[in-house]
Amino acid sequence: MSRLIRDLPGGSAEMLDAFGDEAMVKHMLAFEASLAEAQAAAGLLTGDQASRIAIACAQLPLEVKTLAQEAAHAGTLAIPLVQRLRRALGDEALAKKIHWGATSQDAADTALMLQARTGRDLIARELARVQTALAALAERMAAAPMIGRTLFQDAVPITFGLKAANWLLGIDDAARRFARESEGALALQFGGAAGTRAGLDGKGAEIAAHMARILGLASPVVPWHARRGGVAGLAAALGIVAGATGKIARDISFLSQNAIAEMFEPSVPGRGGSSIMAHKRNPTGCQIVLSAATRAPGLVATILSAMPQEQERGLGGWQAEDPVLADLFVLVHGALLALAPVLEGLEVDTARMAQNLADAGIGTDIGEAVALTQAALKARS
Amino acid sequence: MSRLIRDLPGGSAEMLDAFGDEAMVKHMLAFEASLAEAQAAAGLLTGDQASRIAIACAQLPLEVKTLAQEAAHAGTLAIPLVQRLRRALGDEALAKKIHWGATSQDAADTALMLQARTGRDLIARELARVQTALAALAERMAAAPMIGRTLFQDAVPITFGLKAANWLLGIDDAARRFARESEGALALQFGGAAGTRAGLDGKGAEIAAHMARILGLASPVVPWHARRGGVAGLAAALGIVAGATGKIARDISFLSQNAIAEMFEPSVPGRGGSSIMAHKRNPTGCQIVLSAATRAPGLVATILSAMPQEQERGLGGWQAEDPVLADLFVLVHGALLALAPVLEGLEVDTARMAQNLADAGIGTDIGEAVALTQAALKARS
Amino acid sequence: MSRLIRDLPGGSAEMLDAFGDEAMVKHMLAFEASLAEAQAAAGLLTGDQASRIAIACAQLPLEVKTLAQEAAHAGTLAIPLVQRLRRALGDEALAKKIHWGATSQDAADTALMLQARTGRDLIARELARVQTALAALAERMAAAPMIGRTLFQDAVPITFGLKAANWLLGIDDAARRFARESEGALALQFGGAAGTRAGLDGKGAEIAAHMARILGLASPVVPWHARRGGVAGLAAALGIVAGATGKIARDISFLSQNAIAEMFEPSVPGRGGSSIMAHKRNPTGCQIVLSAATRAPGLVATILSAMPQEQERGLGGWQAEDPVLADLFVLVHGALLALAPVLEGLEVDTARMAQNLADAGIGTDIGEAVALTQAALKARS
Amino acid sequence: MSRLIRDLPGGSAEMLDAFGDEAMVKHMLAFEASLAEAQAAAGLLTGDQASRIAIACAQLPLEVKTLAQEAAHAGTLAIPLVQRLRRALGDEALAKKIHWGATSQDAADTALMLQARTGRDLIARELARVQTALAALAERMAAAPMIGRTLFQDAVPITFGLKAANWLLGIDDAARRFARESEGALALQFGGAAGTRAGLDGKGAEIAAHMARILGLASPVVPWHARRGGVAGLAAALGIVAGATGKIARDISFLSQNAIAEMFEPSVPGRGGSSIMAHKRNPTGCQIVLSAATRAPGLVATILSAMPQEQERGLGGWQAEDPVLADLFVLVHGALLALAPVLEGLEVDTARMAQNLADAGIGTDIGEAVALTQAALKARS
Repeated sequence: MSRLIRDLPGGSAEMLDAFGDEAMVKHMLAFEASLAEAQAAAGLLTGDQASRIAIACAQLPLEVKTLAQEAAHAGTLAIPLVQRLRRALGDEALAKKIHWGATSQDAADTALMLQARTGRDLIARELARVQTALAALAERMAAAPMIGRTLFQDAVPITFGLKAANWLLGIDDAARRFARESEGALALQFGGAAGTRAGLDGKGAEIAAHMARILGLASPVVPWHARRGGVAGLAAALGIVAGATGKIARDISFLSQNAIAEMFEPSVPGRGGSSIMAHKRNPTGCQIVLSAATRAPGLVATILSAMPQEQERGLGGWQAEDPVLADLFVLVHGALLALAPVLEGLEVDTARMAQNLADAGIGTDIGEAVALTQAALKARS
Repeated sequence: MSRLIRDLPGGSAEMLDAFGDEAMVKHMLAFEASLAEAQAAAGLLTGDQASRIAIACAQLPLEVKTLAQEAAHAGTLAIPLVQRLRRALGDEALAKKIHWGATSQDAADTALMLQARTGRDLIARELARVQTALAALAERMAAAPMIGRTLFQDAVPITFGLKAANWLLGIDDAARRFARESEGALALQFGGAAGTRAGLDGKGAEIAAHMARILGLASPVVPWHARRGGVAGLAAALGIVAGATGKIARDISFLSQNAIAEMFEPSVPGRGGSSIMAHKRNPTGCQIVLSAATRAPGLVATILSAMPQEQERGLGGWQAEDPVLADLFVLVHGALLALAPVLEGLEVDTARMAQNLADAGIGTDIGEAVALTQAALKARS
Repeated sequence: MSRLIRDLPGGSAEMLDAFGDEAMVKHMLAFEASLAEAQAAAGLLTGDQASRIAIACAQLPLEVKTLAQEAAHAGTLAIPLVQRLRRALGDEALAKKIHWGATSQDAADTALMLQARTGRDLIARELARVQTALAALAERMAAAPMIGRTLFQDAVPITFGLKAANWLLGIDDAARRFARESEGALALQFGGAAGTRAGLDGKGAEIAAHMARILGLASPVVPWHARRGGVAGLAAALGIVAGATGKIARDISFLSQNAIAEMFEPSVPGRGGSSIMAHKRNPTGCQIVLSAATRAPGLVATILSAMPQEQERGLGGWQAEDPVLADLFVLVHGALLALAPVLEGLEVDTARMAQNLADAGIGTDIGEAVALTQAALKARS
Repeated sequence: MSRLIRDLPGGSAEMLDAFGDEAMVKHMLAFEASLAEAQAAAGLLTGDQASRIAIACAQLPLEVKTLAQEAAHAGTLAIPLVQRLRRALGDEALAKKIHWGATSQDAADTALMLQARTGRDLIARELARVQTALAALAERMAAAPMIGRTLFQDAVPITFGLKAANWLLGIDDAARRFARESEGALALQFGGAAGTRAGLDGKGAEIAAHMARILGLASPVVPWHARRGGVAGLAAALGIVAGATGKIARDISFLSQNAIAEMFEPSVPGRGGSSIMAHKRNPTGCQIVLSAATRAPGLVATILSAMPQEQERGLGGWQAEDPVLADLFVLVHGALLALAPVLEGLEVDTARMAQNLADAGIGTDIGEAVALTQAALKARS
């Protein structure tokens, strides 16, 4: 039932793991443990009770396949998971204290945000790597003349440095937005049945703040069960990263057409080959990026269209977001992982660039392009 | 790295298997074996050669995880798979005959279509089940008066039979389109490097027709590497099935609001419960359907936006289609599997319906609704 | 307040008119007149009453701007339009008979379908023109060798005839689907307040059939107020036409890159120029097609996502479809109108094609490509 | 050819004007005049030359219909517009100085951003109005008990104040993102043929900065012809505003169902009526909002999918953005204009709310909901 062959080529093992079954269960258990700990701090549980709950969370055997079936049946993972925790405790009175004041969506949303936090870190790392590679490329190619192409036609001279600087500025912008939206979105969910934090002796806010500290998430004043702007902003930011990488991959694949032959993905043994043509060297890195850029917009639209969720907690909307947001993280990470080595090892044929430009007969003046590239690099630093 | 907990609640084990790793590898091996068999029939291979290739295909050990990594590296599954087959044969001369005249996309597209064929059968089965349930419901409720509601407001009387008949006609239409588009799309892909079927002694058409017979797929005159209307039509048909089920789920969830209380999903032990409120009975089946209906449109848009694929075989476009089409099959099957039992066991409170109608003071005449329902059921039969 | 400069370059005056204000009002008035005529035939009105209503419909002054404001205020065009008709009649008793048994959505949906019918005819005409041009191109270029390009790289030889045949088959498929979906979707809407055709002395079906004949639309057994599969199927078919044209435009614009220079859009005075570079000849026809192919998928997704409309007539869903379906017709017609002359006048440099192929050193055998092209053309005829 | 009846009900005359033909031409002329003025300041033109160009821009007769046809023919509005300016000058030498160093896309993108700036102001105004109305509502209803509803089922008590506070926080978040993304995106485009600002004696940066000051736009270091993250961020922000308003409209329309009857849109003469049922009061304001929220996601997806634009200036991508971004502004403004009076005049039946809660038998404790609402309002202030 695994989809590894389908998912891995466009994704990464790390990100698939980050959004995998084990991580999800682990994060949900972390939610339940942090809840008990915070309730102990607030005086609702004893320290011993919280410890015993934490131990139950830590020791719960992970039976993903059965859990998945039970979650499919119950309509939510939290219900069977909490049942198992309760059984594992073997203390009926304490068992009732598990998940106290929480609703399934609290655990589900918090687990999703914890997965997203790992995802954020993985993506931030690759974004930085792509930025470094692009800055180096722009610097190194600052004065390399090439044809500027517009509407698929030769236009006037540019430099490859300016093109790379434009790629870089696109990634810079996308990375800033992604960081900002992540910061806004990665928040604890804890509101109970209808988002009021009722039934906690008026200590809901205190407990929420404590849980957020333990889990390393932001602590919103009001639960966000049916207020999905943060998730939507994060999804859109991921979509824009995908678009910014797609722009680069589209350009590189164009420029590696045989008739242009100005740059090539680095040669990697076993990659880019053809099952039938020995002479071919396919831009396989670009393929992965372009495929991700093709898939991201529809996923973003899905999350936007799910925003009008009904009343205190909706039906179908937030349940649709979870796998879609996971897909976006997987695709964007896959795109960056594919793009980074392409940029780091890009084989640039500056002689061919210069020759193509000379053959085009569209002039050779690149002074402004050089100056603009320098200004761009300076403005970033 | 599994995503079972995320995928199973909205999908089904059967469909996840149909589009799973093992099925994909199995179908690709079937493609290679059918190619050898057809080439033997056309006199390009001896019968013995074809048999040995078929045996190699049948006996190849399935190492999904390694294969997935190799596919991710190569950018396509066909390359590592064919390499393994060749090594397994232990006969260098014959090894060269494997995959003869085929390109990676031939194997990939054909495998996708074989997966889609299984998917088609699974979905057709559930569509028929839903249609049967709806026809019975329309018949049974033909004369059950209820409030007709428009723009969220009470309007004039209808019958529940008419509403069910409308649901049924929506599914009928979607099922017809899905059957038609499946028939058109489920076609062999076999064209070689650039879709010409070159290098096969002019016997490409004959070989293709033979392979299509073996594999149980349609045999298009010209390969469709960069002509993706069939895939797009199939995706759109799936999207429309999702929409037609979503309409039903939306209606049922509305009508099971406590203030209306005219119908309820059947009570299933362990389903629809709340992790915090014992009194609640959530419309979990509808939730699954609505979540699928929320996700399908973005996936259809992705496949449409991938249509303008470059030249003889494009970069990124068809690679994006594969996982998206798989998702559509999984979601639509999940929606139908969730909906069928809801309709089969729907608890309808006709007394409450009648009372709500009487309270609304909008009249009670249902003669035309009854007649229209009968006309609808008669027109189908 | 006009958006002509924005809409015309991607659309056409004809299609903008077909979905324009005057056409919409005209079709709504035709709906009201046909309703009266059918009611007279059914004995609900006298012939004289129907005639007077028809005359009022024919003579109603068209004040688009005021009507638009009133429609915006009322939330529907039917209300102010029917009010005006009633006032124009100057006979209070007869005025009440106008719109008898109909609801606003009946008039709105029927008017949309009448606009779509004009749109269907306009698009069918251009599809046929594109098909003719492509068949001629495939025939003429059947034996013209060129590089087959896959994943942006030179692969093996093909012929331009085969490429054109592939384009043609893509349009053939899209045209068939569009014709079929149009036939299914272009249906009268007439159901009254909640789709029961109540209040018409049991003659609703007879009246509906008569109206459908007058208006030249299909006559569904049951009104389809909240059953939107037909509209969705039509939208998807339009999206697939857009994709099939986008494929062609993408290929042509690639092949007219200066470094390839194998074909060019026909030179049209005043088109394709640059505001700054006299030497440039931009593929402006392809630009229009590609822009349409970029916009269509999101519009199709919108219509799919609007399918789960609430109860007997929904809130927001069908109101969203109308402008989106109109946009799809405008964009697809614009794409075909841009593409047809490009194909009819395409400047093909077969010498350059042959030279590029020779330079690529990937062989020259085109026998199979020629045979495949002939088979394709024969299979269509 | 006007589409007023279709566009006005979901939009507004003000926003349609802001993105209308006259505004677009006016902004393009402002671009050309500012270019001349900045070139004069940089010493490239004399003050007299710049003045004469400015006068030509100011006095050019506006023939929208002809211009639209010429733009459709040329593939861009800038070409015919500049031609007319040149002819109007009646001085061949000076005529050549018009549009000096600029490309069509410079004028097109800048004009779009100037339209977007007006659009931003219009939307900001309505966002503030909605925020004010929501804050007042949350305050006024802080202690009004009502049923908290989750997954369409009655859950536990909340207050209407808490619900309104949640709506408000959703709008706050969307408004902040919209302001931020607008600030980033509303930038001058001025780069010339391939984005190098060549041919301006090295004074490109100075001229650009000057133009930006005149036009009131940001001045990016490097032109953004093929770097569309700003536009995509703006589009996504608009989509999220639409989603946040859609959430509110969905809730209000649910709560105004006759069976719940806890709140109603204000009664406005001529609005919300039915063409057939005198007793009905349709939530027409909510309808407009929900229709916009249905349409926005597909439009955002379009702009994301257009991001990978080719090389220095792409083909089809940026041409697709313009009308789509315009649609987003129109829809979002329409949604806010519809929502504001609904919130300002919302008829809330607190007695019915309390009665419904009592009847539900799910408790009555609202202490935490009250405290949470107060905390939310305090945190904003």
